[in-house]
Parts: sequence; C-alpha cells; structure tokens
Amino acid sequence: MLKVPEHQVAGHLAIDGKLGPLVDDSGRFYKPLQGDGRGNKELAFYESFSSDTRVPEHIRKYFPVCYGSQLLEASNGSGLLHHLVLQDIVSSHRNPSIMDVKIGSRTWYPEASDNYIQKCLEKDRRTTTVSLGFRIAGLQLYEGKESGYWRPGRRAVQSFTVYNVRSILRRFVSSNSSIGNESSDCSFAPSIYGGSAGILEQLLELKAWFEDQTIYHFHSCSLLILFDKESVSKGSTPVPVIKLIDFAHVVEGKGVIDHNFLGGLCSLIKFVSEVLSDSKESLIKDCVESEKPGICTDNGNCQQS
Amino acid sequence: MLKVPEHQVAGHLAIDGKLGPLVDDSGRFYKPLQGDGRGNKELAFYESFSSDTRVPEHIRKYFPVCYGSQLLEASNGSGLLHHLVLQDIVSSHRNPSIMDVKIGSRTWYPEASDNYIQKCLEKDRRTTTVSLGFRIAGLQLYEGKESGYWRPGRRAVQSFTVYNVRSILRRFVSSNSSIGNESSDCSFAPSIYGGSAGILEQLLELKAWFEDQTIYHFHSCSLLILFDKESVSKGSTPVPVIKLIDFAHVVEGKGVIDHNFLGGLCSLIKFVSEVLSDSKESLIKDCVESEKPGICTDNGNCQQS
Repeated sequence: MLKVPEHQVAGHLAIDGKLGPLVDDSGRFYKPLQGDGRGNKELAFYESFSSDTRVPEHIRKYFPVCYGSQLLEASNGSGLLHHLVLQDIVSSHRNPSIMDVKIGSRTWYPEASDNYIQKCLEKDRRTTTVSLGFRIAGLQLYEGKESGYWRPGRRAVQSFTVYNVRSILRRFVSSNSSIGNESSDCSFAPSIYGGSAGILEQLLELKAWFEDQTIYHFHSCSLLILFDKESVSKGSTPVPVIKLIDFAHVVEGKGVIDHNFLGGLCSLIKFVSEVLSDSKESLIKDCVESEKPGICTDNGNCQQS
Repeated sequence: MLKVPEHQVAGHLAIDGKLGPLVDDSGRFYKPLQGDGRGNKELAFYESFSSDTRVPEHIRKYFPVCYGSQLLEASNGSGLLHHLVLQDIVSSHRNPSIMDVKIGSRTWYPEASDNYIQKCLEKDRRTTTVSLGFRIAGLQLYEGKESGYWRPGRRAVQSFTVYNVRSILRRFVSSNSSIGNESSDCSFAPSIYGGSAGILEQLLELKAWFEDQTIYHFHSCSLLILFDKESVSKGSTPVPVIKLIDFAHVVEGKGVIDHNFLGGLCSLIKFVSEVLSDSKESLIKDCVESEKPGICTDNGNCQQS
C-alpha cells in the first residue's frame, strides 16, 4: 500500500494531485524519475556509486540504499511512471526532527547552460547559499505532544537569513524550542551534536572523505539531518542520522576534489561546533552556579571533578 | 632609488609609461593606491589586520609586513600619488621561481554590483577558478643559467587548463623543467613541497586557520609561492615562501568562515600532495631499480633500510 510520506520537508509533495514521492510500509521510498533527464541522471549515479570500489565502506552509510527502479502508478494519476526505489530514511523514526541542508556556495555546475546557471545563481544569492556555503531547504522540528511539529512554509524557508540559520541550528537541539532563539536551551546539543556518534563527528568523517575524493562533484545535494527528540527526552541516547540525498546534478570529479561541497560542509561544521561549545559553556556555568563545580560530559551530565 | 620590480609575475606592470608598483634596494615594495577605492580598501585591510589581536602570531608570517602609505612620484609620470609601502617578498631571492595562485572558486563577493559580479563570473568560468577553486594568475620558473626564466605571457596564463595547472605544479619543482610535463622529474618536490617547512605543511597550517577564522573573507586574493631553485641545486635546503597578497576585496567575515577560500585552498593542497606522493613513489622505484632498496627521506635522499 503506497502513501504520501508523512515527514517530507523539501522537494515536490505528492498532494493535491501533484507528482511526488511515495512510501510503503516496508521502509521503501519511491521517487518519480523526473522527465527532463534528472531522474535518469540520479538513477545512473546510484548505479555507478553502488558498484564503485573506490568508495570506502565507512562512507556508504551516509547514502541511502538504492533498490533500482520500478514502474508504479504516479501520484498525480498520470499513469505508470518509473520510480527510483530507495531506502526510506525517516520511516523508522516516530517523531523525527529533520533538517534538509543544501550544501555548497553554488548549486550550478560548469557544464550547465547559461540560463540554468543564471537561475541558480539568483537563488544562491537570494538565499544563504552564497554567504554561508549552504542553505536550509526544508525542516520540521518536533516540539512535543501538544505543539506537534514546527514546519515553516516554503516561502519562509527560502527567506531564511544567516541569523535565522543560526537560531534554527540551536532550536533543533533545544527542549524549549517553541519559545524562540534568545532562550533556546540547546539542552540536547551535547548528545545530538556532540559525542562520538553525534552529528559533528559524522560531519567530520564526511569532511575527511571530501578532502580526498575526486570521483564525484555533488552539486545541489542535501544533507538530511535527523533525530528523534522524544527518545532523548526519555533518557535514551539516539544515534542522530546524516544522509546525503538528491543526486540529479552529480558530475564526475575528474581528479579534482569537490571544493564547493567541502567549503560549505566546513562552514556548517563551524556553525554546529559553535552551538555545541556554547552549550558546554552554559553547562559549566550551571555546574558552577549549582555550587557543584565539575566537568560536563558529552551527554550533558555533570561529572564531579 | 626606486625601480620597476624584476620579478613581478601578475598585476599591472610599471613599464611603457604605465602605472605600477616600484621597489627600492632596502627591501620595500611600493604599490600605487588605485583610485577607484580599491587602494584605500587594501590600506584599510592592512591597518585592521596589523592591530587585530585575534590573528595568531604563527599566521602573521603568511602576510607581507606593511609600513603604511607614502606619497611618491608615480611610475607613469602623473605626479605624486599615495603608495602602499610593503615588504618586498621577492627581493632577498636571487633567482626565484614564483607562482601567483588566486584562491577561491569565485572572485566576486555578495555585496558587489551585478555588473562586477557578471564580469568576475565570466572570467571565473573561462579560467580554472570555477573548476579547480583556484587559478594561476602569473608565474616565472627559473630554468638555469642558460635558459633563464620561463615566463608565459598574460594570454597564455589566462588560458591555462586543468591539465596545464597540473603540469606547472610538477614543472615548478623539476630540475629538467624546460623539457615539459611528460618527463618532469619533480626532483625538488620532496624538499620544496614536502618536509616540515615545505609548501604542503605551510598550506596545511593556513588551512587550519581558515577552518576556524570568521574575521575576514579574502575575495580575489592570491597565494604567492616562491623558492630559489639554484640554492636547492647547490645542495642547501631553502625554505620556500608562501604569502597572501592583494587585499582590495577583503570583506568582514561576520562570524562565517571563508568557505570560498578554504575550498580552493583544499583543492590546491590536494594537487600539491599528489605531486609529492608521485615523486616519492618514483624515488622508491629508483631505489629499487638501483638495487639498493631503501626508504626515501623527505629531502629526496635514499636511506638504506
């Protein structure tokens, strides 16, 4: 039984008779192959990637598993259409908080047409892509049973400023997120951004690969970053997930590193580490103020020194 | 006594009655302040930089010393003109091989006018700036007493391809440089690119700073890379020099890293390390073929194992 994904935060949505991806209840995600060649380019990327022995095993976990393609009834009722069959990254999470972060200070590639380049460039300048080297392309933050999800609309997302991005990266890991930036407590930062399996370590592992790999240039790709806030609140330590998605504009690296992706990734890493170190500082402050001076462990506990 | 610099490889030259920089014999470099505001922006950068306590001491050595500005007779005879007074980086070298590498996959900055951005973008696409994240903006290679310098003209430099850049990075550290790429021996690579004071280590030190610093964004800046080939040939180990130059388009970082510079720098680092590891492999091969298997030290000697 196919249905519209519950937690899709960016891209075309299969609602109101429009064409968009579908999911089943066995954990697969069906993405319609776009007719202008992008779909086939993305399929070709997955095929090349899955058989490329130069990609190290520890890097493969950052990519969704691909199960090939399949003819399916399209969500807009236009008949049978080829779909890319992918691992549904989100399905196993109950109440995921998700950010879709498009990496790179340009989303166009040298081989593209002048028209396409100008269109992308305008959007890159209008958003934080040029200034930050990345932009938030979609998000949903779970804020608890009563408030549900905060899910800003497409227009709001497209007009995010540098200030907004910084706030959202704090709010993403805060328990009091509905209150807004000034007072975001970042209480989940040590366990979600920090720690040996946290977001920062995963981003650094990706960075090390991007400093070296010259196989692919990932234009207009996103990092999907997600975790389940409820399981943190309940005391368990969830492993936050990072996956690269959207490969319709991947081109061959031809012996050159993907400096555009790498630069943006380093910028995101700097933002995430600032949230993390701010949150550690405020934990230390709390320790001191509670008159129990100690050091704060990665999971946010106060360890007596 | 002011004169035209002997080893200037890029920028406006003070010849044929044109406006350009001058040097004296006490090691100072006089750069005319361009009238369109660029000169004043560069002077303002040097003033801000020299007093900025956030810049660590070990990073300052990568910037020329600035001695303020001075009114001088302009090289084009147009009368007195303000000049920026800088350390002459090249003067202490007898026969310097020099590359001027403009770093970044874009040379424009978000605050610039649409016209300026389009002009830069066209040049960035025409050169290797977009594809490599850097372009060679000028160079001279010393090839020995008889052949003198190889100094390609402005047009040739502007049409360098990725292939040319790779060849030049090999030829820059080869003893048989006049023969061309195929047979460049890269015999100086271990002592110039490698080693604890070599180009690669210096680039990595700069990279670590760029991963962290959010003070400045260096648009359209160059890395000047130079060394004296004769002193290597004579058996001494010269310390190759790296300096950042050209700061007319530096803007405030406003809490964001310079991901554009950093990405390009990482791309250059990858190219340089490839030349270095190729040269080490061929040294090991030489060791083996000479039937004296050993390991090759950083300065290119074969150490018996």
